[in-house]
Amino acid sequence: MENQIIDLETRKLGTPRICSPMTGRFIDDSEHVVLNANPDYLEPFFKADKKPPMLEIAGPREKIFFDPSKLKCGIVTCGGLCPGLNDVIRAIVMGLFYHYGVKTVFGFPYGFEGLSHKYMHEPVEFTPEKVKDIHQMGGTILGSSRGPQDVSDMVDTLERMGIGILFAIGGDGTLRGAHAIVEEITRRNLKISVIGVPKTIDNDISFTDMSFGFITAVSEAREVIYSAHTEAQGARNGIGLVKLMGRESGFIAAFASLSNGDVNFCLIPEMRFSMKSLLKALKERLESRRHAVIVVGEGAGQDLIEAPGGRDESGNIRFADIGLFLKEQIQGYFKNTGMDVTLKYIDPSYTIRSMPATPYDSGFCLLLGHHAVHAGMAGKTDMVVSHWYNEFTHVPIPMAISRRKCIHPKSRLWGNVLSCTGQPKEMLEI
Amino acid sequence: MENQIIDLETRKLGTPRICSPMTGRFIDDSEHVVLNANPDYLEPFFKADKKPPMLEIAGPREKIFFDPSKLKCGIVTCGGLCPGLNDVIRAIVMGLFYHYGVKTVFGFPYGFEGLSHKYMHEPVEFTPEKVKDIHQMGGTILGSSRGPQDVSDMVDTLERMGIGILFAIGGDGTLRGAHAIVEEITRRNLKISVIGVPKTIDNDISFTDMSFGFITAVSEAREVIYSAHTEAQGARNGIGLVKLMGRESGFIAAFASLSNGDVNFCLIPEMRFSMKSLLKALKERLESRRHAVIVVGEGAGQDLIEAPGGRDESGNIRFADIGLFLKEQIQGYFKNTGMDVTLKYIDPSYTIRSMPATPYDSGFCLLLGHHAVHAGMAGKTDMVVSHWYNEFTHVPIPMAISRRKCIHPKSRLWGNVLSCTGQPKEMLEI
Amino acid sequence: MENQIIDLETRKLGTPRICSPMTGRFIDDSEHVVLNANPDYLEPFFKADKKPPMLEIAGPREKIFFDPSKLKCGIVTCGGLCPGLNDVIRAIVMGLFYHYGVKTVFGFPYGFEGLSHKYMHEPVEFTPEKVKDIHQMGGTILGSSRGPQDVSDMVDTLERMGIGILFAIGGDGTLRGAHAIVEEITRRNLKISVIGVPKTIDNDISFTDMSFGFITAVSEAREVIYSAHTEAQGARNGIGLVKLMGRESGFIAAFASLSNGDVNFCLIPEMRFSMKSLLKALKERLESRRHAVIVVGEGAGQDLIEAPGGRDESGNIRFADIGLFLKEQIQGYFKNTGMDVTLKYIDPSYTIRSMPATPYDSGFCLLLGHHAVHAGMAGKTDMVVSHWYNEFTHVPIPMAISRRKCIHPKSRLWGNVLSCTGQPKEMLEI
Amino acid sequence: MENQIIDLETRKLGTPRICSPMTGRFIDDSEHVVLNANPDYLEPFFKADKKPPMLEIAGPREKIFFDPSKLKCGIVTCGGLCPGLNDVIRAIVMGLFYHYGVKTVFGFPYGFEGLSHKYMHEPVEFTPEKVKDIHQMGGTILGSSRGPQDVSDMVDTLERMGIGILFAIGGDGTLRGAHAIVEEITRRNLKISVIGVPKTIDNDISFTDMSFGFITAVSEAREVIYSAHTEAQGARNGIGLVKLMGRESGFIAAFASLSNGDVNFCLIPEMRFSMKSLLKALKERLESRRHAVIVVGEGAGQDLIEAPGGRDESGNIRFADIGLFLKEQIQGYFKNTGMDVTLKYIDPSYTIRSMPATPYDSGFCLLLGHHAVHAGMAGKTDMVVSHWYNEFTHVPIPMAISRRKCIHPKSRLWGNVLSCTGQPKEMLEI
Repeated sequence: MENQIIDLETRKLGTPRICSPMTGRFIDDSEHVVLNANPDYLEPFFKADKKPPMLEIAGPREKIFFDPSKLKCGIVTCGGLCPGLNDVIRAIVMGLFYHYGVKTVFGFPYGFEGLSHKYMHEPVEFTPEKVKDIHQMGGTILGSSRGPQDVSDMVDTLERMGIGILFAIGGDGTLRGAHAIVEEITRRNLKISVIGVPKTIDNDISFTDMSFGFITAVSEAREVIYSAHTEAQGARNGIGLVKLMGRESGFIAAFASLSNGDVNFCLIPEMRFSMKSLLKALKERLESRRHAVIVVGEGAGQDLIEAPGGRDESGNIRFADIGLFLKEQIQGYFKNTGMDVTLKYIDPSYTIRSMPATPYDSGFCLLLGHHAVHAGMAGKTDMVVSHWYNEFTHVPIPMAISRRKCIHPKSRLWGNVLSCTGQPKEMLEI
Repeated sequence: MENQIIDLETRKLGTPRICSPMTGRFIDDSEHVVLNANPDYLEPFFKADKKPPMLEIAGPREKIFFDPSKLKCGIVTCGGLCPGLNDVIRAIVMGLFYHYGVKTVFGFPYGFEGLSHKYMHEPVEFTPEKVKDIHQMGGTILGSSRGPQDVSDMVDTLERMGIGILFAIGGDGTLRGAHAIVEEITRRNLKISVIGVPKTIDNDISFTDMSFGFITAVSEAREVIYSAHTEAQGARNGIGLVKLMGRESGFIAAFASLSNGDVNFCLIPEMRFSMKSLLKALKERLESRRHAVIVVGEGAGQDLIEAPGGRDESGNIRFADIGLFLKEQIQGYFKNTGMDVTLKYIDPSYTIRSMPATPYDSGFCLLLGHHAVHAGMAGKTDMVVSHWYNEFTHVPIPMAISRRKCIHPKSRLWGNVLSCTGQPKEMLEI
Repeated sequence: MENQIIDLETRKLGTPRICSPMTGRFIDDSEHVVLNANPDYLEPFFKADKKPPMLEIAGPREKIFFDPSKLKCGIVTCGGLCPGLNDVIRAIVMGLFYHYGVKTVFGFPYGFEGLSHKYMHEPVEFTPEKVKDIHQMGGTILGSSRGPQDVSDMVDTLERMGIGILFAIGGDGTLRGAHAIVEEITRRNLKISVIGVPKTIDNDISFTDMSFGFITAVSEAREVIYSAHTEAQGARNGIGLVKLMGRESGFIAAFASLSNGDVNFCLIPEMRFSMKSLLKALKERLESRRHAVIVVGEGAGQDLIEAPGGRDESGNIRFADIGLFLKEQIQGYFKNTGMDVTLKYIDPSYTIRSMPATPYDSGFCLLLGHHAVHAGMAGKTDMVVSHWYNEFTHVPIPMAISRRKCIHPKSRLWGNVLSCTGQPKEMLEI
Repeated sequence: MENQIIDLETRKLGTPRICSPMTGRFIDDSEHVVLNANPDYLEPFFKADKKPPMLEIAGPREKIFFDPSKLKCGIVTCGGLCPGLNDVIRAIVMGLFYHYGVKTVFGFPYGFEGLSHKYMHEPVEFTPEKVKDIHQMGGTILGSSRGPQDVSDMVDTLERMGIGILFAIGGDGTLRGAHAIVEEITRRNLKISVIGVPKTIDNDISFTDMSFGFITAVSEAREVIYSAHTEAQGARNGIGLVKLMGRESGFIAAFASLSNGDVNFCLIPEMRFSMKSLLKALKERLESRRHAVIVVGEGAGQDLIEAPGGRDESGNIRFADIGLFLKEQIQGYFKNTGMDVTLKYIDPSYTIRSMPATPYDSGFCLLLGHHAVHAGMAGKTDMVVSHWYNEFTHVPIPMAISRRKCIHPKSRLWGNVLSCTGQPKEMLEI
């Protein structure tokens, strides 16, 4: 966070006028939570009569911008699957219906494709009855797709269908697309709100302490590591190698390693490692314990491999497959040293990300979706809902995608991973 | 929090001198996190040159108080079972061994009984090998018991065995006991640190945003509500009634209701309700939908029943059984009104609290246990480890047990429960 | 089976004439499987030119009785919940639709009530689309009820709606009801087939080696025993007491004890036990191991308690609650002997029976349902589908309900339970 | 089965003399179960005064061959992992100890390697305490290896250690090895019994209606298919492709397809298929429903691919990877036809086979292991325990490995798979 002051003010479509039918405590736009709870960090701001960086608190506003009886909303899910997508869809439909009485909610199929006229996907009309049980299913009932569509084309669709709030559930690329839609909406001077719900199974969104689906991903990842450990123990010099999600941040790999306790080497994108030291340490481990478990985040060790080049449809740089690379390197090394090893490689990405959300995660998705609804009804736009210091909060889209959350090498999370795995620190400092 | 300034300063046994063998970032005693991240709350403090209430950040200190090569530690688990107990035991043993090289860790069996000479329970000596897989099992491998033991007798044991740090894992009663032990230690001028790890499946400990075991309890509770819903749907005018843990706080009932989505009435200790209104609303629900699901926290509706009187061995007031009471009231009411209903009552407490921790919860326990170890090694005493604003923190025991965390009737958590269940608010305002 | 020859011939409505559109191997009515595969038992029959008792093999017949294009079918689920009910419903609808092209299948809500005009329950029309995912849910989407209805009234409904095949899924009472319906149909000379699918979570139906839902019940029961064991270990002299389903047969208790391995006393309806010996053995167990786990089938020990008298709505004799009785007896005994014990009593019936079927069980239900369809289409009536010696078979309803399958005291199943629990045999021989 | 008469007589080491300490019903060597329960098949045998093919019933014998107080036993687990391995180990140790009082049981690590002196693996001594909880873990605590070892060397070990019964848990290759050990034992005229417990996750062992681990494998396979279906639905023209175990028999693929209900194409080794027809049918499916799920057994379609040649260490012919082949063919085909598809390929073998056994499977393993113990104690040798017609039985090793159990194209199991998937039969008849 350093010294640079971040402007976290959120945008609105205009002044809300209609009174909300809700009762209970409303949240005022003036309510905030500081972004950094360190008193030494905060003191200079207050003493200098300046506001420290802070996030607007989300929640129901007394005055709302849209007339619920006339409002039409749209939902779109983009990018790869993530546990909880259906929970968020369900929460938005339920929140609109039961909190505000909004009756018309469309789901646009297959991500931004559903907003483009050229695919001619028929929008789905959602009712509470239709979405009532969908949180029990993994994936997204709307389907998804990667990559952007023509912005003007998409805004045409919103305009033609009379959509008042568009909820975009997706990752960085999606939020970038949502922001582009906002810009086109502003250009056309339309009264359409765009609210993002940040989706990242990697838990790497900034300004949020946890992203939905992460707890579920950790759960599934632990089970897979358990299998890898079982396989490793099942053979003399058995090696279980698991590749987990995590393009730029190793939260899943790190947390799954902590929660499992059988991992001997945890490799994450944030930490470069030396193949030579890894192989040496692995050999020592096998010699003393006869088996080993390695967990690697997909973005780790990219400096060691020749990248395939190019970008995928979501605009992400294509990664070389670190899992297969490690598998080959390890097998080659032990073949050369004449040591007989049995390596089992597991790449469980699809079975992890397609799971339904675990119960706690599911409850978190529900709250997240409801707060997205409150934001939209209040006329907020160009922002995402996040969770910070026990509050649901608003973050402007440009801020949310400005940087990624990563594991700091000096963080206690990483320190604990090192102590749990017992992996040599030298291995990680080339 | 109001205007009253809380003294959250933690105690220490003395000045730590021995240098820690750890590398990486150490935490300084001066590092804190504010207790309330609301900028409007904080401003007056800083402007008046006063410190706002804040919590000391936990973590490894550069200088430690005990000599690891000579240190002996003890662990005790008290009170009812809670998911994650074995995880915390494991984390303490592993943390002492791998972070600091402490080789001698005793487990005292059956709670405070294990510290009393009159039961003659043999202490268990723990090694990493012995505790390596215990997190896969529910319960506590140490066994537990309720109620206090003679303080002098327990300190005699600590003194006789040469224990340097006692880790006490338990609820309010246990922490009260731990504080009494500290006072006796102080009286005798001993160099024994007492560190608490607060255990409350109800999630009702103050100054911590989540207690260990809570996520797991919500998971299991959701499954039970699922069964209740299935039973309710399986009969004409079927009613599923589930009693969940929650003596003074309804967090499990509330969060399980959110995560399930099939609950029609959620009754929690914080909110009084009128039996008449509940029965009326239940009748309407059955008439329109043919089935209903009711979730009740064990401490709810105690004003409606005659209490059995007295206290249990942990010193808690004995509650009347609200579940059986509701069952009888409901069955009686519908018998009188001539409406044929089928009520299935489920009281799943033992099957919930005996579960192993879910993976994320398990990782959380590990970090909690490690931070307890850091606190003890630094010579801190009379305090518990908690989690606040993304940091692990220290809270003095007297503070931690001074009040309970409850669901505020105007909180958004409760507002969301109301909107998800659709239960009439009138029912809750007698 | 003894010497008495059982007449297992199944009934038919008449001669099937319409050719089946199916391809593949058809089953001929002459195909059978012997009821007893013991060669010493079989020899005398064959040598005397007599047929040994045998069951007709189920499966698609080349000639079918009903014209699929005109056929209307009905499904009814009765009695208590059992895992797999929705699987069987789904299998019948899918089997009728995809094997034979039958388009009209009604579900009658709430058991036999749905066939009685006096409740005015609206029948549900099932399509493959409607039932496609119901196997993922526990319970029965049709709802259920206990007890008989007026037979004439029910046959009126079948006649009025033009139902050709009625599938009745339920236990003894239901099958008795189904048989009464057949008699009335015969009296009226109608062309209506009645096919039963025997439902007994207790696995106590004769002439079938396993009933649907049993594998799932064992799975859930093991988890509960695990909780009881955890609770027992968590306290000094901890006792975990679990009551499981099993009115007249202890298969769930026995098999769950085998699959768990932590049970010290397994009490089943087939085996009388002496309370005095049980208490003595329990005391010894606690003295040597400090904890104990007891599993009791609900029908066990009924000779020890005063029965409440009367019958429930399904016509079953009301049982006294052996679980609560044991709890009180045990607590009283140890109070008298001055031994401090902690007993946790778990009665998990509703959470077990409301579970969705486990995958293998689910596949078994599918095959069972399809074979019920084949039987009905072939014009069979007054019979149930069962599974015997790796074949699906037909059993006449009167035979199926003529006796119950029980655990024989000299069976190897029971011998294994004795050796696994280590419980004293004397305890069981009063 | 045809007309050929099978000699299923089992071998013994000699006449048992010592009286068994067990009480209860003993099984006599004359007790059998017929191999085929079809009365039309049996009749000619009995009429001609000939015994039909039959299996000896397993179970405790009144007279046993070994003196339990002096007996030493050995256990070895070979080949790939399979759910239930630890259950069987546990059952053998427990059965020897509690049924017969045998105190000395060695586990030989890493399969047949553990019997060879050249690896110098230290045998593990098992006690009930040591194995009490191992059934909760997947894999094998003994470790495993593939491939044979020098027979003479292995028998030397048995002789040197004074082993009386060797229990060999493994597949075809292992049983072949066990038979070779028996031959060497016979040559040396030793009193060592060799009992096999057939391990095949594929369920393809003859003369047994189900092999251990199969139910668990089906459970896990269904979950993976669920993920594949979720992924397929998550994309426009989404294809989920799952490769399952099944070298020569498609039982897992078939049964998982039945239990899931979302599979559109099930390809098994027993049924050749035309790639052209598959692609055509897949295209039609996508055009009408926008997504598809394909399940393929690993031995399917081997005639379509060039085999890599050679054999693996267990002596199995190396298969080409049908999963990757199908992935490439499908992606290539749709690229050529200009249709945009998203294919997700899942190969879950390691995560399936490393699971702990599900409860029912676990109980089955226990009974299987106990019956292996009874067989060994009675002095039986060169045989395996199997399950047939509700009995545990003995099968001579040479018989057990003489043929494989396969799915017959005209079986009702396969007929049901065809009707559940709706896949065109033409596709399977080239």
